[in-house]
Parts: sequence; C-alpha cells; structure tokens
Amino acid sequence: MIQNSEIFIQHLKKYGHIEPQQISGILSFFKRTRYRKKESLMTAGQICQEHFFVESGCLRMYFVDEKGVEHTTQFAIESWWMTDHLSFLNQSGTGFYIQAVEKTIVLSLNVNRQNELLARYPEMEKYFRIIYQRAYAASQMKEMYLQDFSREELFNHFYDNFPEFVQRVPQYMLASYLGITPEYLSEIRNKKRS
Amino acid sequence: MIQNSEIFIQHLKKYGHIEPQQISGILSFFKRTRYRKKESLMTAGQICQEHFFVESGCLRMYFVDEKGVEHTTQFAIESWWMTDHLSFLNQSGTGFYIQAVEKTIVLSLNVNRQNELLARYPEMEKYFRIIYQRAYAASQMKEMYLQDFSREELFNHFYDNFPEFVQRVPQYMLASYLGITPEYLSEIRNKKRS
Repeated sequence: MIQNSEIFIQHLKKYGHIEPQQISGILSFFKRTRYRKKESLMTAGQICQEHFFVESGCLRMYFVDEKGVEHTTQFAIESWWMTDHLSFLNQSGTGFYIQAVEKTIVLSLNVNRQNELLARYPEMEKYFRIIYQRAYAASQMKEMYLQDFSREELFNHFYDNFPEFVQRVPQYMLASYLGITPEYLSEIRNKKRS
Repeated sequence: MIQNSEIFIQHLKKYGHIEPQQISGILSFFKRTRYRKKESLMTAGQICQEHFFVESGCLRMYFVDEKGVEHTTQFAIESWWMTDHLSFLNQSGTGFYIQAVEKTIVLSLNVNRQNELLARYPEMEKYFRIIYQRAYAASQMKEMYLQDFSREELFNHFYDNFPEFVQRVPQYMLASYLGITPEYLSEIRNKKRS
C-alpha cells in the first residue's frame, strides 16, 4: 500500500477521469518495490502475478532462445507499464524475463488487486483501456518496422524517436532489441555520429 | 445505424457488463457494410477512420515493402476487431492496407462515434479495455514466436491453434503472414500431412 506517487498521479490525470478524492483510495491498491541494477522481477516459467509501473529507472523484457541467446523485446522507463500480459491475463506460465536495467523503483498491481481496483473504481477502466490501446497501437507499428526496415533504419528510427534510450541502455541490450550484434550497432552509431 | 447483431451482442455479453436495455442504444452507433472478396477497406496513405468488427467473413491487414512485396501482419475472422490503431488514435496516415479475404460483413465504428459511444456508455470502457488487453497480450506472444520459432514451428503453432485459418485463407496470404514463400509453405504442409 502506498501513500503518494507524483508521477503515477500525473499519468492518471492525463489518461483517466479521476476525482481528487479518489486518488488515495486508488493508490492503496499498489505496492512499491525498489530493485537493484540487473535484479530480476520475473523469470520464465513463473506465472506472472504483477503489472509493473515504472516510477523511476528502466526495465527490460526479454526471452532466451534455444541457443541461450537473449532477445530483448521491450524497454520501459518512467510512466510506462510492463508485464507479460498473456501470462497475467490467463495465469499461465510466462516465457519472458523482466529485469531492472538500472536502479529502478516500481509500483506494482497484483493480478487480483488490479481486478479489485477495476471493480471498486470503474473509472479506472478508461485509464487502462487507453494504456492497452496505446501499447497495442505501438506494437502494430513495431511489427511493421521489424519486417520493413533495415537494421540501420531501425536504429535511426529508434535514435530519432527515443534518444534517451540510446544513451541510457547498455549497448548489448540495445543491440539485442534491434536484432543485431553489438559490433554492428557500434558501426552504425559511428556512422551516425560522423 | 444497425438494429441487431447476434454475434456482436454475444461478444459484448462475454466481455462487458451491459444491461439488456442498453443494447439497442449501443448498436445505434455502428454501421454495417458488406464487402466483396478482395475489396479494400483501408489503403496506405489514408487516415484510418474506422474500427472494424467482423460479423462474418475474414479480413487481413498488410503492408507493402519498398520492393512491392506484401507482408500480411494480421487476420480477423468472426468476432475479431481490426484497425491500424496508431492511425485511428492519432488520426495520422496509415502504412497498412485492410482487405476482405472473402465475402465479409463488417460492423464499424467511426473514430468520433467510438468516442461518443464511450462517453455515452462508460460501461463500454470495460469491453474495450478487455479487447485491447487481449489483443496486446497476443501481439507480445507473436513477437516472441516470430523471433524464436523456425518458420516450420511457426506454421505448426498456427495450424494447431487456428486450424480454421489454414483452411480458409489463400495459401499465398498465409505464406506472407508466416514470412515464407508459398512453395515452402506447401512443402511444410505436405510434411505435416504425411
């Protein structure tokens, strides 16, 4: 149970229609957890119980293929939500890992708490409808980019749209997100700089 | 404006909490359109105005790369929703096409009508929250499969989970969805049959 969260309240006001007197009741459904750099929030094989909102720091989601290679599928920085939604929704095992990229503070909603929150505050349906709608919209675009863009175009697109990530995230993670080797990423970056 | 839709009402009851007396009011926001096989519902370059619900038939969404090759990213059969959500949300140009795979009847919500519907019937927020949540959950899994599975594993997964698609959809579209040539798809199918 948390008392306050400036960043979450701002986000709530941006996408929801919440009365000021409801805020403390809504916040009481959340838990705040601090993670160290590289600490794990979720591991493949588990059933995903939590929906994570980043207060500060950065998370990444990845899976490990048969050859043991990590593939980063998503990052989440301040005000972004993250979980394996299928595992969260169906309470089935996840194939993903979630890890703190840097020191990270997270607000989390347990699956039961999220359902209770929505039942108690139906006004939160709009907020989550918009969160999921925007996330899904972005994933449709990403699917096109992954197939349509060369790896260099993909990096340039990412660099132009999310410059803060390119600075913040370790290069091997960014390379894994772009589906290239760290060496090739370094080559593309040098080309961009010159 | 439509009077009735058995399939949509079933879907609404499954995912929303709607009172029976609200149904005719909700339906009045929709438009019904019949499309011929191969008819276009949306074309790259347009601003996407409609959110489509399939009453009967099948839609596909695709983009065309620089070399003129079609890449099918999604199919939608009965009770599935489809649009380019980023274009719909931001009223920006789409890079996608939506086409009827077979004779298809669609209920559609114009972007303004969807907003009006949600304002008039806040109970619909829950329905759309679940629609988007499930769609996003599926897209997270698909991103993993596309990177983790061999094309043959991808076909087998698709065949086991959506057998009706494999029968219904022309092979060249299915091949384009799986990112393989129609010849290779035919080879995999024959192997599966034997």
